[in-house]
Amino acid sequence: MNDALTLTQENQNVDVAGQLAVDVPTLAADELWRMNAYWRAANYISVGQMYLYDNPLLLEPLTMSHVKPLVVSHWGTTPGQNFIYVHLNRVIKNHDLDMIYIAGPGHGGPAIVGNVYLEGTWSEVYPNISQDEAGLKKLFKQFSFPGGISSHVAPTTPGSIHEGGELGYSLSHAFGAAFDNPNLIVACVIGDGEAETGPLATAWQSTRFLDPVTDGAVLPILHLNGYKISNPTLLARIAHDELEQFLRGCGWEPYFVEGDDPATMHELMARATDTVIAQIRQLQTVARSTESVTRSRWPMIVLRSPKGWTGPKSVDGLQIEGTFRSHQVPLLVDAHHSEHLAQLESWMKSYKAQELFDSSGRLIAKLAEMAPKGLRRMGANPNANGGLLLRDLHMPDFRVHAVQISSPGAVFAQDTLVLGEFFKDIIKLNPDNFRIFGPDETLSNLLGAVFDVTNRQWDMATVANDEFLAPTGRVLDSMLSEHQCEGWLEGYLLTGRHGLFNSYEAFIRIIDSMFSQHAKWLKVTKELAWRRPIASLNYLLASHVWQQDHNGFTHQDPGFLDHVINKKADIVRVYLPPDANCLLSTFDHCLRSRNYVNVVVAGKHALPQWLTMDEAVVHCTQGVGIWHWASNDQDSEPDVVMACCGDTPTLEILAAVSILREHLPDLRIRVINVVDLMKLQSASEHPHGLSDADYDSLFTKDKHIIFGFHGYPCLVHRLTYRRNNRNLHVRGYKEEGTITTAFDIRVQNDLDRFHLVQDVVDRLPHLGSRGAYLKQMVQDKLVQHKLYINQYGEDLPEIRNWKWGASI
Amino acid sequence: MNDALTLTQENQNVDVAGQLAVDVPTLAADELWRMNAYWRAANYISVGQMYLYDNPLLLEPLTMSHVKPLVVSHWGTTPGQNFIYVHLNRVIKNHDLDMIYIAGPGHGGPAIVGNVYLEGTWSEVYPNISQDEAGLKKLFKQFSFPGGISSHVAPTTPGSIHEGGELGYSLSHAFGAAFDNPNLIVACVIGDGEAETGPLATAWQSTRFLDPVTDGAVLPILHLNGYKISNPTLLARIAHDELEQFLRGCGWEPYFVEGDDPATMHELMARATDTVIAQIRQLQTVARSTESVTRSRWPMIVLRSPKGWTGPKSVDGLQIEGTFRSHQVPLLVDAHHSEHLAQLESWMKSYKAQELFDSSGRLIAKLAEMAPKGLRRMGANPNANGGLLLRDLHMPDFRVHAVQISSPGAVFAQDTLVLGEFFKDIIKLNPDNFRIFGPDETLSNLLGAVFDVTNRQWDMATVANDEFLAPTGRVLDSMLSEHQCEGWLEGYLLTGRHGLFNSYEAFIRIIDSMFSQHAKWLKVTKELAWRRPIASLNYLLASHVWQQDHNGFTHQDPGFLDHVINKKADIVRVYLPPDANCLLSTFDHCLRSRNYVNVVVAGKHALPQWLTMDEAVVHCTQGVGIWHWASNDQDSEPDVVMACCGDTPTLEILAAVSILREHLPDLRIRVINVVDLMKLQSASEHPHGLSDADYDSLFTKDKHIIFGFHGYPCLVHRLTYRRNNRNLHVRGYKEEGTITTAFDIRVQNDLDRFHLVQDVVDRLPHLGSRGAYLKQMVQDKLVQHKLYINQYGEDLPEIRNWKWGASI
Repeated sequence: MNDALTLTQENQNVDVAGQLAVDVPTLAADELWRMNAYWRAANYISVGQMYLYDNPLLLEPLTMSHVKPLVVSHWGTTPGQNFIYVHLNRVIKNHDLDMIYIAGPGHGGPAIVGNVYLEGTWSEVYPNISQDEAGLKKLFKQFSFPGGISSHVAPTTPGSIHEGGELGYSLSHAFGAAFDNPNLIVACVIGDGEAETGPLATAWQSTRFLDPVTDGAVLPILHLNGYKISNPTLLARIAHDELEQFLRGCGWEPYFVEGDDPATMHELMARATDTVIAQIRQLQTVARSTESVTRSRWPMIVLRSPKGWTGPKSVDGLQIEGTFRSHQVPLLVDAHHSEHLAQLESWMKSYKAQELFDSSGRLIAKLAEMAPKGLRRMGANPNANGGLLLRDLHMPDFRVHAVQISSPGAVFAQDTLVLGEFFKDIIKLNPDNFRIFGPDETLSNLLGAVFDVTNRQWDMATVANDEFLAPTGRVLDSMLSEHQCEGWLEGYLLTGRHGLFNSYEAFIRIIDSMFSQHAKWLKVTKELAWRRPIASLNYLLASHVWQQDHNGFTHQDPGFLDHVINKKADIVRVYLPPDANCLLSTFDHCLRSRNYVNVVVAGKHALPQWLTMDEAVVHCTQGVGIWHWASNDQDSEPDVVMACCGDTPTLEILAAVSILREHLPDLRIRVINVVDLMKLQSASEHPHGLSDADYDSLFTKDKHIIFGFHGYPCLVHRLTYRRNNRNLHVRGYKEEGTITTAFDIRVQNDLDRFHLVQDVVDRLPHLGSRGAYLKQMVQDKLVQHKLYINQYGEDLPEIRNWKWGASI
Repeated sequence: MNDALTLTQENQNVDVAGQLAVDVPTLAADELWRMNAYWRAANYISVGQMYLYDNPLLLEPLTMSHVKPLVVSHWGTTPGQNFIYVHLNRVIKNHDLDMIYIAGPGHGGPAIVGNVYLEGTWSEVYPNISQDEAGLKKLFKQFSFPGGISSHVAPTTPGSIHEGGELGYSLSHAFGAAFDNPNLIVACVIGDGEAETGPLATAWQSTRFLDPVTDGAVLPILHLNGYKISNPTLLARIAHDELEQFLRGCGWEPYFVEGDDPATMHELMARATDTVIAQIRQLQTVARSTESVTRSRWPMIVLRSPKGWTGPKSVDGLQIEGTFRSHQVPLLVDAHHSEHLAQLESWMKSYKAQELFDSSGRLIAKLAEMAPKGLRRMGANPNANGGLLLRDLHMPDFRVHAVQISSPGAVFAQDTLVLGEFFKDIIKLNPDNFRIFGPDETLSNLLGAVFDVTNRQWDMATVANDEFLAPTGRVLDSMLSEHQCEGWLEGYLLTGRHGLFNSYEAFIRIIDSMFSQHAKWLKVTKELAWRRPIASLNYLLASHVWQQDHNGFTHQDPGFLDHVINKKADIVRVYLPPDANCLLSTFDHCLRSRNYVNVVVAGKHALPQWLTMDEAVVHCTQGVGIWHWASNDQDSEPDVVMACCGDTPTLEILAAVSILREHLPDLRIRVINVVDLMKLQSASEHPHGLSDADYDSLFTKDKHIIFGFHGYPCLVHRLTYRRNNRNLHVRGYKEEGTITTAFDIRVQNDLDRFHLVQDVVDRLPHLGSRGAYLKQMVQDKLVQHKLYINQYGEDLPEIRNWKWGASI
């Protein structure tokens, strides 16, 4: 079958959008033979990786000792991806294209690894795996084998920016890679299983935001393999016209390549790839040479081919090729299935490796020359090792936006509003490699200043009253999809640029799993010297749990922090700046960092400001520190430590301290603020962690610590469980927050100043009657507060307008 | 404008799929007046809820003292939803429909609350809010006010099963409600912002799985409001033909109702609703009366209306109606904007409330009679208070599937394979109110036994080699979307049925945020006596972190447990059964429970079985216990406690204990297994938590505890930080797991028997040279292990085949 190179087969499915006449072949006979031969070589190498422990060229009769004891891999998608890869190689060579390959069905690792090996990149990156028989043997053995490489496309795979683990993000990654890359074409293979996920389903709409002038192109290749693990796929089973309607409805011009005869399919695929590349170039040329802003449909390919194509037709009487049974290992060959050994041998021999590889095990020259050269090889394209292309951001001076502080707490400011001015400067200085992504929350999170110097990128019509929409712009916030924002940003970072995800705090949970996968990717890339560091993934989580008086309970979830810190300590960083100056300093640091995930939580409501810019820089550099101006322990041992982390807890702790100092002036209080959350963890656990000695000298070994925390209290306990001081009492969010005022949400969660004062009094019995009196007083205040809000719907003026040092 | 009831306006957008002649009105003049009047009443009540503190009927001139001090709400979607509601009321009455309403844009709380009040349900559920002026005043004041109700549609809203917080799941919820509800029509209003989310984008495909014979119908109403917070929406801006292609491509027959003139729009909407109801009924009748399995397109409505329709046209010179500026509060009226008071008054008066309400403040009879009666009212439909309809499951005896245990560890079994037999029995006994949902993982997670008695529900064509696909079936696993599985299941549970989400452990993180919202929903419903308890949301997380030798690092994330336990303690339950008998007993318990989220982690690989069924039942009932057969402390104080939670840690802890007892026979070891994770937390924190006394008597006050845990070690520290015993050392997953063998993943994370033995020896210096000798021995074993897997690719036979009591 692999030699059936004539174009005579009748095939009803054959159709490239009905446009191409069958009687004018695109591929001359020799090219067709070579295309197919290269595909055979890739398929052979794929099967070899899956099964063979030794005897890579089958020069000896195959025995069980040549077969891996445990064969674990995914065959189903592999031959189709090999087919696509060889055809992309062809157009890259013919048109000198700058192209990368994203493998949505990345569990088909053997395909990408095999092709990267055939084109020579693998041996350049891993010289130990040479292009000869010895190298082939190692290539085969390492695959999905202890000490070797993953069975999926992974960071170890040159040319990849997209891991084949969790599915759903290939197309978003592809668009992220294409933004601000006008010469790049991102070929994105989308599995029909993946296409059923929500993130992929909405990513089809991405062309609405792509600027054909300043961005590159994305070429989706929807691979209708027909089956998932054990089910058919949806898009392969709906009517052909419905599928076409769907894709057209998403803004695409689909070209269909459908069938199973290799020769016919090669011809159709060559025509389809030629057509779509021409169309992309035409579309870009028009857009770049005229003032026209008419939106065009971008072309794409639908490849319908049998799952497990060219693999075993049937095994033990059950059909395998073209069914779900070819999803993973189509032919079990192990101690219990040694009778399949001959079938494996004849399957592998069907590819006629002796025609493809010379006696040394090297791909013959007439095939090897079909691969692109140098950096045009998809495995070697620097866009897929973004750190190679990364330029430092031009960083403006954040200090110019400092909030002027006459005395702590005297001035109110909206932290993210101030931060917006800094991002405006960053955008001015970095017009082509920094972007802000978000689900329509740029204005809501108060970063609107950026629109003084840029726009929202939007490639559709505009009407009166639209604001800040333009064909190109640094902000991509016009789509309500956290999945798209995260996927776009990841693709942008992985190809060597910088960016920010600006989100509501609660709804960042929507991309919990995407963050996980990115953190895992970074963890593995750090172990690979050839993968150059990329810019950190920066999150700004505003509209946070304590500022949801407008939206209420559903919008309250500070748990992303709990999630993040389960990942590797050398990847994750968490910051909770207490005021605007600290927020500026924090982001200046984050934007300069590499290979991290930085999570920054900040508020947008007007709150008191505490530190001058100089103080803020020192405080953020230390990450944690005593606020001497708020403390009265004069470097002696305090009676109680009042600690805070997050803008709202800082306010309430300081208000509580103010009450305590007024009413119990001889109580020695130490106030500690934490900006860098990981300071709390042991130095042995996190590189930012305080040593036990430093922790003890700050927090004391045994004094009561009343800790006001932004998130779930248990997170602080979890970070500090190894510390000496066991008298730690944390207040934070405890899932209470029905509709009420800003202050009352704190009351409902016991994080308000009055409860905090009670916490101190309850733990210091020596305060005696003075403590009891104060406790009664704050309890009275709580009653007064409740009556007032139920009557007036807003907080007591003395609470709304409270300033550091004011009496209650 | 609200009185402009003629049908003369030319409107180019007017089109109900081009099918309906404009010159044959559906609404007679009087009905049209009444429809519009009812809409005016709903709009009036909506604006009143947003703004008014007093003077609900505007009987006095409006003053600032009548206005709430802080107006927080979303107006933009509200009039459109009021419009939809009144039209759905009309078809419910005309056709005696059993219909519920899902508000995708649920932040438009005033609309649903207002309509539920107008139809009388609100006052029945909350008698304090009567249908008169006093009631209106309370209705208005409570809205988005401390001590009142959320500004979103929430559990407090009768008739709702869908919270208006996080967006994306309305359509999945709607289909979940429709399954096995053949007479129900679920009207699902989808905002055009929500439509951009991934979960919603893929939910359009749900008709492929709906059985017109045994399921009800879903009627999507895509509300093209045009704008999100500050951006246009995508579907409102793409070409009309593209939108139609998109919806047709997703399998729908769309009817368009577009315009802004109320009279015209009423007529068009009446025609559209009549048409779609007739089409649904026709489609169901054909399907139910013939053997035909031809798939039909289900009808839907696209309503394009101005955002903030009938609200202020412009404020301070800026256009409001029909722009994003009407998203939240279209007209600021507060101390800083008192000049807007007159505009608010004239806006409210434009609805002419005096025509709609009598002098007592009650809706006039000719309008009130337009609402459906009794349980046909959408606010009173019992399907939206599913606990009312909930029937207990018929529970088979799980004991018949017991794995027979001759002695602990002697028998191997695959836990979920055994569980599959139990689910098969459950399905046999409960053919119409229990379903299993999952992303194509039923077979992979080894629950395939269920296909002996049921099928996968699938409403498309089938071909040769398809397995278990049929128009109706208890399993919905043919779509690769965790969002759909979760959304469908939630909708199914919320309407009074039972089910299971069967997932890979790592990828349940995809629905972290959906779980959060459901847990929040349950928390609030528990505080509402009229909301009856529903069946628990049950997760089976198989293919877990320790069984990813086939897939590797990307498939390893046990952190869902960390996420879950941040929610309210009276909602969440977490179980990690160590073997098949415990797994059976656990699920028997979970399926009988109400209003919980039960997370059960279980393995599918063959592992040793420990407890007889009688022992398992006792152990699971206790949730935690000493395994005396593995311990040798004979009820005295042990030298060390070896604790385990999860199937793999249990195996490794027991293997370590076996080594220790062989080589250090006089070391007194206590073995504790934890099934119910929340037992570890303090009784004051979780209802399942052990008292400190009980914890101390199990775990001792100060002996070293070596704890093998399934997930991230910090989780155990977080649960136990209040406990007395500080000598707790937890091993678990620490984000290591590149491709390797099953045992080696444990080694990479220090959870293997050899590291665990070292952990004991390192902490018991009194073991002296015997300890040192043993430590050297296990270190040698680790070297031997590494060499073996690198050579052979599989674990040492003595490890693979190890049984309790065997030597190393």
